[in-house]
Amino acid sequence: MKKVDVLIIGGSASGPVAGITARRHYPDASVTVIRKEKQVLIPCGIPYIFGTVGSPEKNLIPDALLSKNGIDLIVDEATSIDREAKTVTLAGGETIGYEKLVLGIGSQPLVPPLPGVDLDGVFSVKKDVAYLNSLLQTLSGAKDVVIIGGGFIGLEMADECAKSGSSVTVVELLPHCLYLVFDEDICIRVEEKLAERGIKVMTNNKAKAVLGDGKARGVLLDSGEELKADVVIFGIGVRPNTKLAQDAGLKIGERRGIWVDRYMRTSDEDIFAVGDCAEKMDFFTGKPSGLRLASIATAEARIAGANLFRLKRANKGTIGVFATKIGDLAMGMAGMREKTAREAGFDVVVGEAETVNRHPGSMPGATPLKVKLVFHKDSGQLLGGQACGGTSTGEFVNVIAGLIQAGMTADEVATYQMGTHPALTASPIAYPLVNAAEIALKKMR
Amino acid sequence: MKKVDVLIIGGSASGPVAGITARRHYPDASVTVIRKEKQVLIPCGIPYIFGTVGSPEKNLIPDALLSKNGIDLIVDEATSIDREAKTVTLAGGETIGYEKLVLGIGSQPLVPPLPGVDLDGVFSVKKDVAYLNSLLQTLSGAKDVVIIGGGFIGLEMADECAKSGSSVTVVELLPHCLYLVFDEDICIRVEEKLAERGIKVMTNNKAKAVLGDGKARGVLLDSGEELKADVVIFGIGVRPNTKLAQDAGLKIGERRGIWVDRYMRTSDEDIFAVGDCAEKMDFFTGKPSGLRLASIATAEARIAGANLFRLKRANKGTIGVFATKIGDLAMGMAGMREKTAREAGFDVVVGEAETVNRHPGSMPGATPLKVKLVFHKDSGQLLGGQACGGTSTGEFVNVIAGLIQAGMTADEVATYQMGTHPALTASPIAYPLVNAAEIALKKMR
Repeated sequence: MKKVDVLIIGGSASGPVAGITARRHYPDASVTVIRKEKQVLIPCGIPYIFGTVGSPEKNLIPDALLSKNGIDLIVDEATSIDREAKTVTLAGGETIGYEKLVLGIGSQPLVPPLPGVDLDGVFSVKKDVAYLNSLLQTLSGAKDVVIIGGGFIGLEMADECAKSGSSVTVVELLPHCLYLVFDEDICIRVEEKLAERGIKVMTNNKAKAVLGDGKARGVLLDSGEELKADVVIFGIGVRPNTKLAQDAGLKIGERRGIWVDRYMRTSDEDIFAVGDCAEKMDFFTGKPSGLRLASIATAEARIAGANLFRLKRANKGTIGVFATKIGDLAMGMAGMREKTAREAGFDVVVGEAETVNRHPGSMPGATPLKVKLVFHKDSGQLLGGQACGGTSTGEFVNVIAGLIQAGMTADEVATYQMGTHPALTASPIAYPLVNAAEIALKKMR
Repeated sequence: MKKVDVLIIGGSASGPVAGITARRHYPDASVTVIRKEKQVLIPCGIPYIFGTVGSPEKNLIPDALLSKNGIDLIVDEATSIDREAKTVTLAGGETIGYEKLVLGIGSQPLVPPLPGVDLDGVFSVKKDVAYLNSLLQTLSGAKDVVIIGGGFIGLEMADECAKSGSSVTVVELLPHCLYLVFDEDICIRVEEKLAERGIKVMTNNKAKAVLGDGKARGVLLDSGEELKADVVIFGIGVRPNTKLAQDAGLKIGERRGIWVDRYMRTSDEDIFAVGDCAEKMDFFTGKPSGLRLASIATAEARIAGANLFRLKRANKGTIGVFATKIGDLAMGMAGMREKTAREAGFDVVVGEAETVNRHPGSMPGATPLKVKLVFHKDSGQLLGGQACGGTSTGEFVNVIAGLIQAGMTADEVATYQMGTHPALTASPIAYPLVNAAEIALKKMR
């Protein structure tokens, strides 16, 4: 029987990063990744396959990432864990022993149990090259595409599908797209941008059934309205993969992920879990969190990988840092927005600032940049921030994320020392982070 | 005699921000700004007047910034301060009383006392609309432009002047352009980019004289070589304006700025100094610093403005966060680089990572992104970072700046929670900040 020091199940974002981190921290350990997919997709890149990038094969995580870090790869499916014997059995029959095991077994897209969801032409966003190639092929002849779910994945899919000339409609249950993440004003900007790009958005709406005979031809809404559809794509969230862990008797968390402690250890201290399959704890409240993102997965993998043989790093909890781009409008969010913070019991003040992301405004690429920061009224601590603007908004939101992680107060944000440049950022006078903090401070007094 | 609660001398970056901050923190105070310029230039935008933006008039700080914040404006020159009477006398003869006085009186470009520097066609980069219009006009007919100084201003001027078709040569004393800020590898990338854009760079070279008869026709170098030049522009640094303060008996610092304490108070506690005219203290060493940037000026102004009538904020010292762009290559720096840190007495480790700022790499706008982080070996504290890449590098360097200000260690940077998106950032697997930190950690053990 083969035996390795570190065995990792899962080859998407978290597995390889756990392996690379293990290699860095324990250079002498043998590390093996088991995954069931021949080829692994870059998870966040999947929507872009259908417009910008062109094919699943152009959106792969290269296996060189493993080989150049001295990590062995087995392509097979892990079917069971024997915790007593410290072994994993594979579908191919092989059994592998481990010293430490890492589960990075991901999640599955949710598809609601509606009539017609098994018709041809109905898809979800699975991390599977063959499946996505079939979606790509189906889309290429499609006239009408209906996307169920106006979250990040839904809107990114909508924007990309519209590029090939299909008529695209997004159906969203809530009053706005991205409404679980952004405040209404930013949601409205996004919806305007979608409209400008010819995408129809139907909010406060719910799919009741997919219509068709063998093949999808439409979507019936709760309102009774029927939408024409050659292709229907569900993008309503994911469910963590936990069967392997449950079968092995590992504890499952409240939010249905594999339970882990601050060190990413499961209820078996020789088994770690990271990424979409693992339960999260909220940075601010300490409560279980339902967030699942590739960037969270890699951060957890960097904690788990370092802790395998000696506890080195604690997980301070999941902040949640998002960004996306619809057309030329980028938007992002870190931490809590006002509504979430109030619901969690914090008294908060909000500071908003809007400027342009270049100076003077006649510099090329100048785009309005809007920022909204949320602070804890009592301590002044930065709890969250939203931003909306040009392409640099992605890294701009990462500035906010850094200040949150550092536990900065409104006063510290107001005197934050940033660098500025006419062709790269807002002016130092108008830099919206510091101004939003000053405006919030005024309300704290 | 007019008397105001807050009198501010200087209308560039620091003065107005001190005024706005005073307005926010002391809403009932009367605030007046005195400045000698009719129109105020955006300081960092000045080089862009000569190519991208087109005229000084398109690069102005609007006076509405003052009026909409209820700040009065007097256009006149302050000629003396009577600290006993707490008054300022203006060139126009008026005397104004103050409760608190803020000096944001800036700096002057240095021009070395070489033969020929008073010839027509010899310029420095002054914050003066008429002067810059005259430079603009002179440049419009120029065939050969020589720029003395390969720092930020020199290179930005060179890149802009080259856009109008002039033949541009940069003369730099040190072995590389930007060599006081970046490590050699990044300097070399910048020099390659300059060469690609047709700009000649002569490093390890020094101007000995400007040649000409009434009008500049060339530059004589120390090496004996002569360069043809219709226009010669000096960009070799600035000297703080301190005469007004010195005449009033205020203490001057080691680095020739007006001495200030942590609260931005001068040796007279009713007088504050901010921006280029004020002495700086280094964030890491606590020693006097020679850095002068608009972004530092505004951060100081936000401290001074809040402290006018009650001490609210302390200056933790100047970190120094720079960014610039030459052609499509952006580069930036926060804190100390390896050389500076070692010279200051720190034992350091460096972590480097290079990736692409999109994922997959076939996403539009994908550009290599290189990062070098410097950590204190003993404490693990992040001391500085350099980055080189696409337009988002400006905000990316601001992420580094935030982590430095927060006092983060290599381990905290390695588990920093960032947001990522295919069209906006590097992948979560390859995000170069966390990888550079992991690589540095490996060297610490």
